[in-house]
Amino acid sequence: MASIRDDEATGNGYIDGERQAREPEEQILNHRKVMEQHNNGLEDGDNEKKEAMSIEMIFKDKEVPTWRNQLTVRAFVVSFVLGILLSVIVMKFNLTTGIVPSLNVSAGLLGFFFVKTWTKFLERSGMLKQPFTRQENTVIQTCVIATAGIAFSGGFGSYLFAMSETISKQVTEADDSQNTKSLSLGWIIVFLFTVSFLGLFSVLPLRKIMIIDYKLIYPSGTATAHLINSFHTPQGAKLAKKQVQALGKFLSFSFLWGFFQWFFTAGSDCGFGSFPTLGLKAYENRFYFDFSTTYVGVGMICPYIINISLLVGAILSWGIMWPLIETREGDWYKSGLPSSNLHGIQGYRVFIAIAMILGDGLYNFAKVLGKTTTGFVKQLKKKEPSMILPLADIASPEGKASSFDDERRTQLFLKDQIPSWLALGGYVLIASISTAVLPQIFHQLGWYHVLVIYIFAPVLAFCNAYGCGLTDWSLASTYGKLAIFTIGAWAGNDQGGVLAGLAACGVMMNIVSTASDLTQDFKTGYMTLASPRAMFVSQVIGTAMGCVISPCVFWLFYKAFDGIGTIGSEYPAPNALIYRNMAILGVNGFSSLPKNCLTICYIFFSGAIIINAVRDFTPKRWAKYIPLPMAMAIPFYLGSYFAIDMCVGSLVLFIWEKIDKVKADAFGPAVASGLICGDGIWTLPSSILALAGVKPPICMKFLSRGTNVKVDKFLNS
Amino acid sequence: MASIRDDEATGNGYIDGERQAREPEEQILNHRKVMEQHNNGLEDGDNEKKEAMSIEMIFKDKEVPTWRNQLTVRAFVVSFVLGILLSVIVMKFNLTTGIVPSLNVSAGLLGFFFVKTWTKFLERSGMLKQPFTRQENTVIQTCVIATAGIAFSGGFGSYLFAMSETISKQVTEADDSQNTKSLSLGWIIVFLFTVSFLGLFSVLPLRKIMIIDYKLIYPSGTATAHLINSFHTPQGAKLAKKQVQALGKFLSFSFLWGFFQWFFTAGSDCGFGSFPTLGLKAYENRFYFDFSTTYVGVGMICPYIINISLLVGAILSWGIMWPLIETREGDWYKSGLPSSNLHGIQGYRVFIAIAMILGDGLYNFAKVLGKTTTGFVKQLKKKEPSMILPLADIASPEGKASSFDDERRTQLFLKDQIPSWLALGGYVLIASISTAVLPQIFHQLGWYHVLVIYIFAPVLAFCNAYGCGLTDWSLASTYGKLAIFTIGAWAGNDQGGVLAGLAACGVMMNIVSTASDLTQDFKTGYMTLASPRAMFVSQVIGTAMGCVISPCVFWLFYKAFDGIGTIGSEYPAPNALIYRNMAILGVNGFSSLPKNCLTICYIFFSGAIIINAVRDFTPKRWAKYIPLPMAMAIPFYLGSYFAIDMCVGSLVLFIWEKIDKVKADAFGPAVASGLICGDGIWTLPSSILALAGVKPPICMKFLSRGTNVKVDKFLNS
Repeated sequence: MASIRDDEATGNGYIDGERQAREPEEQILNHRKVMEQHNNGLEDGDNEKKEAMSIEMIFKDKEVPTWRNQLTVRAFVVSFVLGILLSVIVMKFNLTTGIVPSLNVSAGLLGFFFVKTWTKFLERSGMLKQPFTRQENTVIQTCVIATAGIAFSGGFGSYLFAMSETISKQVTEADDSQNTKSLSLGWIIVFLFTVSFLGLFSVLPLRKIMIIDYKLIYPSGTATAHLINSFHTPQGAKLAKKQVQALGKFLSFSFLWGFFQWFFTAGSDCGFGSFPTLGLKAYENRFYFDFSTTYVGVGMICPYIINISLLVGAILSWGIMWPLIETREGDWYKSGLPSSNLHGIQGYRVFIAIAMILGDGLYNFAKVLGKTTTGFVKQLKKKEPSMILPLADIASPEGKASSFDDERRTQLFLKDQIPSWLALGGYVLIASISTAVLPQIFHQLGWYHVLVIYIFAPVLAFCNAYGCGLTDWSLASTYGKLAIFTIGAWAGNDQGGVLAGLAACGVMMNIVSTASDLTQDFKTGYMTLASPRAMFVSQVIGTAMGCVISPCVFWLFYKAFDGIGTIGSEYPAPNALIYRNMAILGVNGFSSLPKNCLTICYIFFSGAIIINAVRDFTPKRWAKYIPLPMAMAIPFYLGSYFAIDMCVGSLVLFIWEKIDKVKADAFGPAVASGLICGDGIWTLPSSILALAGVKPPICMKFLSRGTNVKVDKFLNS
Repeated sequence: MASIRDDEATGNGYIDGERQAREPEEQILNHRKVMEQHNNGLEDGDNEKKEAMSIEMIFKDKEVPTWRNQLTVRAFVVSFVLGILLSVIVMKFNLTTGIVPSLNVSAGLLGFFFVKTWTKFLERSGMLKQPFTRQENTVIQTCVIATAGIAFSGGFGSYLFAMSETISKQVTEADDSQNTKSLSLGWIIVFLFTVSFLGLFSVLPLRKIMIIDYKLIYPSGTATAHLINSFHTPQGAKLAKKQVQALGKFLSFSFLWGFFQWFFTAGSDCGFGSFPTLGLKAYENRFYFDFSTTYVGVGMICPYIINISLLVGAILSWGIMWPLIETREGDWYKSGLPSSNLHGIQGYRVFIAIAMILGDGLYNFAKVLGKTTTGFVKQLKKKEPSMILPLADIASPEGKASSFDDERRTQLFLKDQIPSWLALGGYVLIASISTAVLPQIFHQLGWYHVLVIYIFAPVLAFCNAYGCGLTDWSLASTYGKLAIFTIGAWAGNDQGGVLAGLAACGVMMNIVSTASDLTQDFKTGYMTLASPRAMFVSQVIGTAMGCVISPCVFWLFYKAFDGIGTIGSEYPAPNALIYRNMAILGVNGFSSLPKNCLTICYIFFSGAIIINAVRDFTPKRWAKYIPLPMAMAIPFYLGSYFAIDMCVGSLVLFIWEKIDKVKADAFGPAVASGLICGDGIWTLPSSILALAGVKPPICMKFLSRGTNVKVDKFLNS
């Protein structure tokens, strides 16, 4: 379950739709360690031993509700509220940097908090009919993450927004009406409904094979299950309560800080978001700390190496390369172009970044596909999970004791079957509807394009779900890019290939992404004894909610904030530009690139592959200090302000860990979630204020001393 | 000892040279409570019992060094360094608001830290000849506080600066050369040397009577002694170490924050100091939080009622009265005057504040003099300290055990005598020199004026020292104001009465202030077994250092910062203006006041007296909620920004106390000291940067939305 953390981004969120996972084992072990350390801190080792023995032994006396009883009305009410909240937050990430951190812990904590408060209230008034079980908790988590997942896979920050005139205007190439489509709420919702459910059906028949026969690990799904299980032990509930308190405290702080900042943002380049913290010269090159609690929080969640990679990328690009290239102005590219023009310096920024992202994507695609294939082949040959044993060992390191867990879990997992005819019938039905409807929405996309995608999709979906189970790595956006290039080239420039490519990307990403989501969720359900049937229903409802909520949230941003989608504004939606340029590359080739740009792109494309290979072939001890090319590429076009925020987050966590490792491990994620959610919640009132035409009263402006003298003279005259 | 906390301001610092003391008993009990609670926290009640039994029993085995050995070179080196530091900090207070908080704890902690580090280092290298004793610690404390005391009693923020052209230009009346004197380093140092030592000799012969016979309590001196004694018990040293760490942490933070702020202050109305935190409208009326760590720290040291009084005063004046009076512009006063003109709105601000300060001063002068007289008369009659028993009880509440303390302390206090002929001879000698020299410096001041002051001075000095011993209340600045009015009127306008009055104020204040200082110090010395002879030498050396350091520090500020001494600038030196206006009132009467101002002044003058009377005659339970008129008067002319800072400090402390009372009591003063000292230290490099002509590079400007649009248009054109 859990699409944000687990589907593509599993473990640690998305970067450009790819994930950047902590080592999966590390992730699970980490959570267990926190619990143990916390227990040790609280009492003696008694409980710890108990937990280490067998999780299902602890829950032995607790009755597992029927699958119908796992699906409660309150669960879906809470899911709806949290779904909106997380959609807003994910949308904010889509539109600011495109980096979406894992929000699983926040969703888990908040969901637990809401239902627990609710049930406690009912219990006191004597109206509680059904206690809060971990199965119900799993249902909520699944539903919320499915809802918020659409905010990502809906492409509001990437392929979908890339179709709009806002983006096409900036690119200048292929900006004809053939290759753009004005956004409107209606067709977006219809589009999402027709493409988002296919993934659910495509892997449904194979879930038993992946979870029970192959014992695939699904690290994020397992981690989520551990989290939920821990909530429902007495010790865990105590810790969870404290974590919720920490989250609440930092949420309030972050919200109020956002509110305070708002007052000083009259006009562009005003307010704390434009604070030249490191000096004006650095600010011009987008090096500054912008006081964003969101990205400080993200920095606390992301592994150190991600944040360092971002910073290295920023220094390499904005510190060294762009200033050097800018000295060639008039030679390599026409002088006097505005800095946002893709034929000028911006072209180098965007295309070098694309080269690096593609290089990284290609390498990892090959790697994961290779692993998937070898793993799968071995499975089929030996009929035993030998290859994945090292991982399976970690999932159940308790030796003998784990067999009780396994037995009980398998028993309940197999109890509620979902008939294969439903899966197959559902897929064919939705695919047919989709094939008929999609060309109506995008007339550039032929029904044959859609059909071809739907024939290949189940295989790719399976590959992705299997690979994700092995490596925690979802390649949804890579498959999407594949669709951009193939379908785009097939349709051709005259037939609106750019738009066709982007639409195809959407179709592909949605299937592949939800497929791995659902399988992750099944793993979580397996470990919390939630019924697969309940999980499936929850996922369907969550997806449906997401198909309505996400477009509405996007629409709110789109209408409320000026300059959305343009680099340099508050919501630049950087991936939209990147995706559109990839589509143009796919259709038109390299003709639009400025001078020498292709050469540099080749260097960075191969560089990304080489760095990845070096990472894989050096000993782990050293490999962890080698930056990730994917992460390095993002500041290339965005600047480094968010990287600095994130490094501040890293620094805070680092110092905290030095001072009190146990506390930092236990409360770090909660604090980070609070920072992210508070700022996210503030975007709601702030967008409503913007819609209502209420403008902030003050501009906090930063002027150089010289300019200030001039301005003072002007104001006094 | 300890002039900052103890001389006039005893306990809680000066407001306009008057003090605003916490209840003296409360102060001592507080410190004891902190120690006890801390001990309880650390170990079981053992040490606590021991301490409650008898302090001198704990120190029984420790040898008391001879008075010569109490005066070490290292003590004076440390005193010199700390003296400079504290002088800078006090000077900053003089020149910003005129509120000087108690810096005793900071001085104590820092002194202890320095010598302890030094001795530990020597101990390791085997070169330690003499261990660090509490007697030596007392010597340092005395010396440092004497040095920093000159920074206050030297009048750099009041009478001395009031003589300058900077201030006289703003007043317009009596701004002739007769009544102004340009400042220069030379005569200031000479002046200080001739007037600062008289107080020391004036009360010397009476110290045995006050300390041993009358057993006067001297709350601040006693509190300082407790602090020093606690440093030298094993438990206390542990606590002190932690306190020093807290101080260091917040000192660094505060320093770095000051450094960071500096970069954004190119030009006036730039930077965090001009942050319209509560909106532009509020900012225009000087309501804003200016991010000054200094005043947040001061707020943590000052009692809540002081901070609330400041805020009440600010709201009353800038929130209600000034806007109302401003509606009468053109009627009550000429319209179109700049807001700093004393014939306009500024006149109301300044004179109403003066009325309130004088009303409060008069009431308390009468009250303390009354108490002093009755107390003294009773003493003489009964030959026993009956009247002061309630206080003496608190000083030695240990019953039987205390007699051991008393015996041992008395024995050592009487060991090293200072001969009476030295005191008398010294006084006469210095007075004669002074009478000859002072008219040379201020030709407006006749030798007969000086002589009259010196005849009355010993009586006033005795009154002040005695009153201070009873109530912890030093009236130095009230005596100073007395001199302004009497000598000013005597000299008359034609003879430069304004300048004569100000000079006389200086002479008087220095004597009266150092007299109570020294007696406080003797009390501390009595309780820490420091030799009176060593104390006296230390005070003489400290005063001499202060006479050189303070003028130099002032000169640094004077030369480094533009606009020093003008209201609205970074260093407005508000008391200078107030003192000059008082001198003019004394010489010229009420002729210079704008329309209706005198009536309002009468109301506030009586108001101050009534509020004080009500405070004294309501039950303590309610009285503590009645604001102090003296504190209310300060924002009248300054605005409320520092009051808001201080209330923030109060709020922080209040919340801290709610969360963890023990910790807040133990570490609150250390944290506050850190905040104050860090920012204070930063003023050193900042003034050097200013002297060297290094200007900050960026202006952080705050513009209304409308203005911002205009400015953007101007900048883009």
